[in-house]
Amino acid sequence: MKNLSRYIPVLDWGRSYNSTALSNDMIAAVIVTIMLIPQSLAYALLAGLPPEAGIYASIAPIILYAIFGTSRALAVGPVAVISLMTAAAVGQVAETGTMGYAMAALSLAMLSGAILLIMGIFRLGFLANFLSHPVIAGFITASGILIAASQLKHILGVDAGGHTLIEMVWSLITHLDQTNLITLGIGVTATAFLFWVRKGLKRALLNMGVGARMADVAQKAGPVAAVVVTTLATWGFGLADRGVAIVGEVPQSLPPLTLPDLSPSLLGQLFVPALLISIIGFVESISVAQTLAAKKRQRINPNQELIGLGAANLGAGFTGGYPVTGGFARSVVNFDAGAETPAAGAYTAVGLAIAAVALTPLVFFLPKATLAATIIVAVLSLVDLSILKKTWGYSLADFAAVAATIVLTLGFGVEAGVSAGVVLSIVLHLYKTSRPHVAEVGLVPGTQHFRNINRHQVETADSLLTIRIDESLYFANARFLEDLVLDRVVEDCPIKDVVLMCSAVNEIDMSALETLEALNSRLGDMGVRLHMSEVKGPVTDRLKRTHFLEEMTGDLFLSQYDAWVKLSGKA
Amino acid sequence: MKNLSRYIPVLDWGRSYNSTALSNDMIAAVIVTIMLIPQSLAYALLAGLPPEAGIYASIAPIILYAIFGTSRALAVGPVAVISLMTAAAVGQVAETGTMGYAMAALSLAMLSGAILLIMGIFRLGFLANFLSHPVIAGFITASGILIAASQLKHILGVDAGGHTLIEMVWSLITHLDQTNLITLGIGVTATAFLFWVRKGLKRALLNMGVGARMADVAQKAGPVAAVVVTTLATWGFGLADRGVAIVGEVPQSLPPLTLPDLSPSLLGQLFVPALLISIIGFVESISVAQTLAAKKRQRINPNQELIGLGAANLGAGFTGGYPVTGGFARSVVNFDAGAETPAAGAYTAVGLAIAAVALTPLVFFLPKATLAATIIVAVLSLVDLSILKKTWGYSLADFAAVAATIVLTLGFGVEAGVSAGVVLSIVLHLYKTSRPHVAEVGLVPGTQHFRNINRHQVETADSLLTIRIDESLYFANARFLEDLVLDRVVEDCPIKDVVLMCSAVNEIDMSALETLEALNSRLGDMGVRLHMSEVKGPVTDRLKRTHFLEEMTGDLFLSQYDAWVKLSGKA
Repeated sequence: MKNLSRYIPVLDWGRSYNSTALSNDMIAAVIVTIMLIPQSLAYALLAGLPPEAGIYASIAPIILYAIFGTSRALAVGPVAVISLMTAAAVGQVAETGTMGYAMAALSLAMLSGAILLIMGIFRLGFLANFLSHPVIAGFITASGILIAASQLKHILGVDAGGHTLIEMVWSLITHLDQTNLITLGIGVTATAFLFWVRKGLKRALLNMGVGARMADVAQKAGPVAAVVVTTLATWGFGLADRGVAIVGEVPQSLPPLTLPDLSPSLLGQLFVPALLISIIGFVESISVAQTLAAKKRQRINPNQELIGLGAANLGAGFTGGYPVTGGFARSVVNFDAGAETPAAGAYTAVGLAIAAVALTPLVFFLPKATLAATIIVAVLSLVDLSILKKTWGYSLADFAAVAATIVLTLGFGVEAGVSAGVVLSIVLHLYKTSRPHVAEVGLVPGTQHFRNINRHQVETADSLLTIRIDESLYFANARFLEDLVLDRVVEDCPIKDVVLMCSAVNEIDMSALETLEALNSRLGDMGVRLHMSEVKGPVTDRLKRTHFLEEMTGDLFLSQYDAWVKLSGKA
Repeated sequence: MKNLSRYIPVLDWGRSYNSTALSNDMIAAVIVTIMLIPQSLAYALLAGLPPEAGIYASIAPIILYAIFGTSRALAVGPVAVISLMTAAAVGQVAETGTMGYAMAALSLAMLSGAILLIMGIFRLGFLANFLSHPVIAGFITASGILIAASQLKHILGVDAGGHTLIEMVWSLITHLDQTNLITLGIGVTATAFLFWVRKGLKRALLNMGVGARMADVAQKAGPVAAVVVTTLATWGFGLADRGVAIVGEVPQSLPPLTLPDLSPSLLGQLFVPALLISIIGFVESISVAQTLAAKKRQRINPNQELIGLGAANLGAGFTGGYPVTGGFARSVVNFDAGAETPAAGAYTAVGLAIAAVALTPLVFFLPKATLAATIIVAVLSLVDLSILKKTWGYSLADFAAVAATIVLTLGFGVEAGVSAGVVLSIVLHLYKTSRPHVAEVGLVPGTQHFRNINRHQVETADSLLTIRIDESLYFANARFLEDLVLDRVVEDCPIKDVVLMCSAVNEIDMSALETLEALNSRLGDMGVRLHMSEVKGPVTDRLKRTHFLEEMTGDLFLSQYDAWVKLSGKA
């Protein structure tokens, strides 16, 4: 039972569920449901899907995550970045608005769910670690800019396209003459209103003496107000007949059971995008989950989270949705509203199901420009170019990775950007460790300490060269060490003994071992002995399984001072 | 002048060239030339090119390397593994035996030369470090098996094909009924003879009282003897008319000036193979050069080697050759024969040029089966599966990399094999460093030393958790650290202070810094303070450029003992 509840966390928290938790969860669910209705429609629009796909993607996935996920407050559903990535991936295999497009989105969700599930079962959550924080930050920022740019066509009411920033801007410019002025008016007004709601409304209400909690609710209801007002205006003034694009008919239905397109060629084309969506979604989701869990001294199990998100995405694939993950905004709202258990998510799902059946006719006249405005305002808060300045001051390698990610995401799309960021940060890390900090050390007089001869006044001996390596020895720096030692020995003929001081060497892999063997024999050819000192226990254990220590021309010293005493002829 | 001679090493050694060096170099050149004639023909056959391509590829490249290279003994020309990779790469874009095939081989040599030159100019030699030793060993072994298998068709005298082991074996089996028995007789006899020359001849001669040097020469002359005898037999008995495939007419000419096919689509298709050929060739060449240089206390400059090999390959591309590199066997022969300077290479080039003009009619009746036999015997000495056993006992990660390289090279060809090996060793390295060795430490009583609480009898304090991390903190392990600390704190409520002991932390990148910030604030949410101790100078300098140290809830201690004194309440 204990073991089962590890894989199905609902068995754990479900047994201690009580009426306090129930009422807290219900309140949170109502607030989140109201917030999610316009958001779900908007993100579906961003993904290039019919509006109901956004609502469907919020129902089954929430319930499945509630059963299998470990976070108590995470709200799963469509999010901005994943919606953009879905549009980019599906746009490569099908035409927007076609049946094939919606089918491919289902396949993408299913594939992504399968990848997440497999990663969770095989405990591969560590793969997400290869995305460095600056790469994620750069990617989110660039995606925010791309998303905002992609929505400008709805604000202008034109039929533009493009997947990169340049394509989008160029397409907008060439379609500028088709601008629908009424749509533009609605879009600009809604955007300005929503910005004001986000930035100025709360302070204004507080100044007017409204209570803090009330002001908070008013702020969250902003998007709903924009939706209601613009829908009524469009209906009342018949703006749809004057060229304002509206959401139109949304089927009044519970999420349908759907079967994704399982043709191998489609799955092959979608595999890499699905992998990137899975990893980006997982990283986004787990950061949110960990942030919220830490506030209540709870813990998240990353591999179980993969299973939870995998189940949610499989659910999305079989119920008319598209890829989902744990969203930042909705989860924070859920947490702040007092959600205590994943049951809050299940109640939200019920709320959305009711909305899907009963409320969809109400959004018939909702202008797409209003949805675009909610997206723009939401994603521009993700754009944070300060990461460039922060990394510039701290680490050039991190700066290069984040700059490449931003530039390539904007210039070549989301997949190129995030892939380049990952590859570049790995290559730069390997490059850094391939030329580790190495110090030639000598004895600090009157002590048994050895320090860098370039920084400290130390004693040295002409025939003895001691090198301290501040890095594990492995394939990327194996040759570096060999070159360094040999160069140093060739230029300095009195050297008879070389000591490698290994206090910061945490590993010696096979390549490094072979380099040490080669170094040993090459130094031997020159009549120079090789010694090692301060080798850590686990590293020594491993070396003892080989013949290296027997073949080494010199000795293994427990401490550098022992080596000095024996080899310097000075102590 | 000093600066110029760094890029054109001939200016350096050329000025001190004297008659002793001249005669030593001349003797070495004669020996190497005799060895290279059959070898060059054989490797051209392996690469799927006409026999003269092998000789041409040995002339201009040798001279160019003599001018730009830094090794005194390296002999540049066609080698087995690069010939195989050439066949695999060019076979994908053209039909063997066509004009387009030879042109594509020129393009490949030129592209590879350009890549090496660019890597040399931009000092990118470190990229070769990403090939770990076990991956190289596995790749060479698998290539040896593939090459030997690819030559069996010449031994059988059938027209089989295939680029992977299974394809080759299957193709041989289906063509078995076409076996030419005379060819088979020549091939098997030549192979057996050459194996005996390599393994048994020298001992037999020594036992018969022949001098050691003479026995050595006899051993090296073995392939030439096989060539002479089988050629005479084929001519004398008219075996070519009975279906024995012969080398046939080889143009009597100096290397022609050729212009590679520069069409962008071809270069695009050949880019990845050329990159792999460049890196594999560079790694093979530099290992040989370093081994030989160390014996004379000379040094090799890796980036200059890239320029030397780049020039050699460009030369091959414009003079009817194909990709070349420094070969192990020929370089060792050159070194053992007493070559003192790269001029020995130039004399070898002259010898081969004379052979190309004067001796090519003599190989008209040389059976291809004999060439195949020389290749098989040469490459089987490269096959060394002991690397599997060696890595198995030492490191599972290295074993996985070498096993994957061997299996994928045999199963999917050279490019897939070596790429998979590189990617897998990088991923496994990152995986290892993503879960570094971490110890919870306590005070060894009566000292100021802190050791692992699981291995030593140490003092601890209930409210104080001290963690020593044996790895640099960077993106791949940032989350691991956070999980570890938070898990430990959540399960143990009396903890009020956490100290990170950073004596083995050589770097803290931006991701790790953000993790520390998050850890600091999450621990803060739980009412626990975060401290650091024994942070290295350069790491501290970098942290001081941020706000982290000010925001940290606890203190930065110079030594762990200072932290203990202040926080344990026991000292």
